[in-house]
Amino acid sequence: MIRIEDIAKKLDISKGTVSKALNGAPDVSETLRKTVLETAVELGYSRSMRKKGAKQLCIFVKNMTYTSPSDFGYDIIIGFRKMAEPAGYIVAVEELDDHIQNSTPYDEYMLKRNYVGALFLGLSLSDPWLHQFRTSQTPAVLFDNYVKVNPNTTYVGIDNNEGMNLAISYLKNQGHRKIGYLSGALGAYVNQVRYSAFFHSLRKYGLADDPGLGGNAYLFSECLQKHLPRLLKKGVTAIVCSHDLLAHTVMIHCQELGLRIPEDISIIGFDDLPFCAYTMPPMTTVQQNRTGIGKSAFYALDSLLGNIPISTLLLHAKLVVRQSSGPAPERLPRDILEDTLQAVD
Amino acid sequence: MIRIEDIAKKLDISKGTVSKALNGAPDVSETLRKTVLETAVELGYSRSMRKKGAKQLCIFVKNMTYTSPSDFGYDIIIGFRKMAEPAGYIVAVEELDDHIQNSTPYDEYMLKRNYVGALFLGLSLSDPWLHQFRTSQTPAVLFDNYVKVNPNTTYVGIDNNEGMNLAISYLKNQGHRKIGYLSGALGAYVNQVRYSAFFHSLRKYGLADDPGLGGNAYLFSECLQKHLPRLLKKGVTAIVCSHDLLAHTVMIHCQELGLRIPEDISIIGFDDLPFCAYTMPPMTTVQQNRTGIGKSAFYALDSLLGNIPISTLLLHAKLVVRQSSGPAPERLPRDILEDTLQAVD
Repeated sequence: MIRIEDIAKKLDISKGTVSKALNGAPDVSETLRKTVLETAVELGYSRSMRKKGAKQLCIFVKNMTYTSPSDFGYDIIIGFRKMAEPAGYIVAVEELDDHIQNSTPYDEYMLKRNYVGALFLGLSLSDPWLHQFRTSQTPAVLFDNYVKVNPNTTYVGIDNNEGMNLAISYLKNQGHRKIGYLSGALGAYVNQVRYSAFFHSLRKYGLADDPGLGGNAYLFSECLQKHLPRLLKKGVTAIVCSHDLLAHTVMIHCQELGLRIPEDISIIGFDDLPFCAYTMPPMTTVQQNRTGIGKSAFYALDSLLGNIPISTLLLHAKLVVRQSSGPAPERLPRDILEDTLQAVD
Repeated sequence: MIRIEDIAKKLDISKGTVSKALNGAPDVSETLRKTVLETAVELGYSRSMRKKGAKQLCIFVKNMTYTSPSDFGYDIIIGFRKMAEPAGYIVAVEELDDHIQNSTPYDEYMLKRNYVGALFLGLSLSDPWLHQFRTSQTPAVLFDNYVKVNPNTTYVGIDNNEGMNLAISYLKNQGHRKIGYLSGALGAYVNQVRYSAFFHSLRKYGLADDPGLGGNAYLFSECLQKHLPRLLKKGVTAIVCSHDLLAHTVMIHCQELGLRIPEDISIIGFDDLPFCAYTMPPMTTVQQNRTGIGKSAFYALDSLLGNIPISTLLLHAKLVVRQSSGPAPERLPRDILEDTLQAVD
C-alpha cells in the first residue's frame, strides 16, 4: 500500500507538505500541488486513499438532462443516491465539460477533488477520459459505455439485445415483415450496440435483414428527410428508433405526411421517458429501469471500492406496449404516400 | 397482488385450508396440498408471498464440489452467505438431483419449501429446470448459465471473453503463434462460451484460428488420447484449457510424454482453484473471483426480490501468471516428440 511517506520520499519533501498538497492547503503552490498529485497517481496512491477520509463519490453528467423528473438522468441519480447516502457516502453531481477532461487526467482530477469513485452518464466515444479508463486506477462505473479489461471500471446498462428482441418479436407477432430502424449518431457506444442488435434480431426472427433497413444521423432532420423516405420506399410497415425523442419526432413527421399511427405504420421508441405515456398516440417503447440502473450503478461502484471487480451489470429490458404500434397494415405506407414520396426524389 | 383468498376462491375451499396446505400442515392431504401449490403457482402467488413470512433462500448445487475450502463452490457459497445472513435471510444449501427436477416444477418446489429465491451452481444445459427458467416466477440467479428475457432470472459469472483475451494476448506477447484449446463437454453453457471466446480471441490478436486448434470431450482420456496428440501435430506451442483440472491432467500427460513445462510447452488453466498454486510447476490460470461471485449473486437475487430486474452480472477476469507458461520454445513440441506422436497414429 502506498502511503504519504512514499510520495514524500520520491519527491524529497516532507510528509506534511505532501499532506497539505493533497488536501489543497492554501500555503502550497499550485505547481507543487500538481507535482504531488501527479506523483501520487503515478505511485497508485488513489487506491489506498480510499480506506480513510471522507468517502465522496461523484456522478459526472454529459450530454444528458437530469434536473427534472422528466429528464432521462433524473431517476438514475435518485436511485444512486438512495443507495449511496444511507451507506455513508457523500454524492456530488458535476457536469463534465471538455475543458476539465482536456486539462486534467481522470485519476488526478479525482484525487484533487477527493472523490473515491465516479459514475459517468452520457459519455460518448470521443470523450478524452474514455480512453483513460482502459488503465485508470480510480473506480469508475460507466453507464452505457464498455471499457474492457480494466478491473477498476464497470459497464452498467440495460440488456439492449434483449430489448431489441422484445421489440422485433412483438412486431413480428403483429404481422410485420419489413421493419426499419432509425438511430442517432453511431459516435455513442449504446447506439452502436442497438444498431447491431437490430440486425441481429431481424436474423434471429427470420426477417429480411437488408442493411438498407437501417439509417443513422446526428441530426433528426437528416433521419427525417433522408432515411425515413428511403425506409418507407423499401416497404417498411414499422420503424424502431434508437431513442424516444427520435421516435416521437418520427411519429409526428409520419402523421404530417398523412400516415395514421398505428393503423398505417407502427413506431417503437427506446428508453420509456416519462413523456412517452402522453404522446399522441402514447408510445410503445423499450423501457430502461432508470431507478434500477442508478441503484445497480451504486452497487457496482461500491463493489469496485471493495475489490469485487464487476465488469458488466445489465438490467432486463421490458417492452411497454402502448398505442403507437399495432397489427401490420393491409396497405403499405409507401402505397398510401406514393405521390409524396415521389416528390422527395 | 394475489392473496390466499384468490386461491381459496378459485378452488372453492376455505382460506384456512389454503393456508394450511401452503404451510404443509399434517391434516391436509398430499393430493390437496399439490393442487393448492399448483394453483398458487398458476395464479402467480410466489411473487406476492415474498413480502411476508420467513425469507429463506436456497443455493442449489449440482455437478460441483463445495464442502471444503479447496472446492470450487466453497467460496461462492461463503461469499453469498456473508452478504445474505446479515441482511436477514436464512440460507439453505441443497444438492439438486434429477429426481426433484423431474417430479416437481421449479416454482412449485420453491413454494413448497418456502424459499423466496435461489442461486444455482453447476446446472448443465440438459437440466430439466433450466428450460423452466424462461418463464419461471420465483427469482433465480444462475451461475454460468444465461436464460434470456425472463425478468425473474439473472446470469452471474466472470467475463469469459475478457479472461480468454488475457490468456491469448499474454501468450502472444510471449512469442506463441499457434495455440491450442482443450475443453470439457459443450453440454455446459460456460464451456460453449469459452470455446467460442477462444477462437474469437485468436482472431482478435491476429493468430491462426483454424477450427482444428480446438478439441472437446466429456472424458479427460479422450482429450488426452485423441485431441492432445492432434494439437501437438498441428504445431501448437501452448495449450489453454477450459478448466484447471483438465489443465493439470494435460500438464502431467505432457510431462509423461517427455515435454518440459514451460520450456517446451506452455499450459494455461481456467478458474484458479486453490490447488493451482501447488501443481508442478505452479499453474498459470484465469482467475474467477469466487467470493466476489457469491457476493454479487446475493446482490442480484436481492435485487430481483426488490424488483430490480438484473439480467447479467459479470466480474472482471484476471490472469494469474505462474510457472506453467513462458516464452515460446525454439523447437516445436511435435519435433521433440516425433517418434511418440507417430506411434499414436
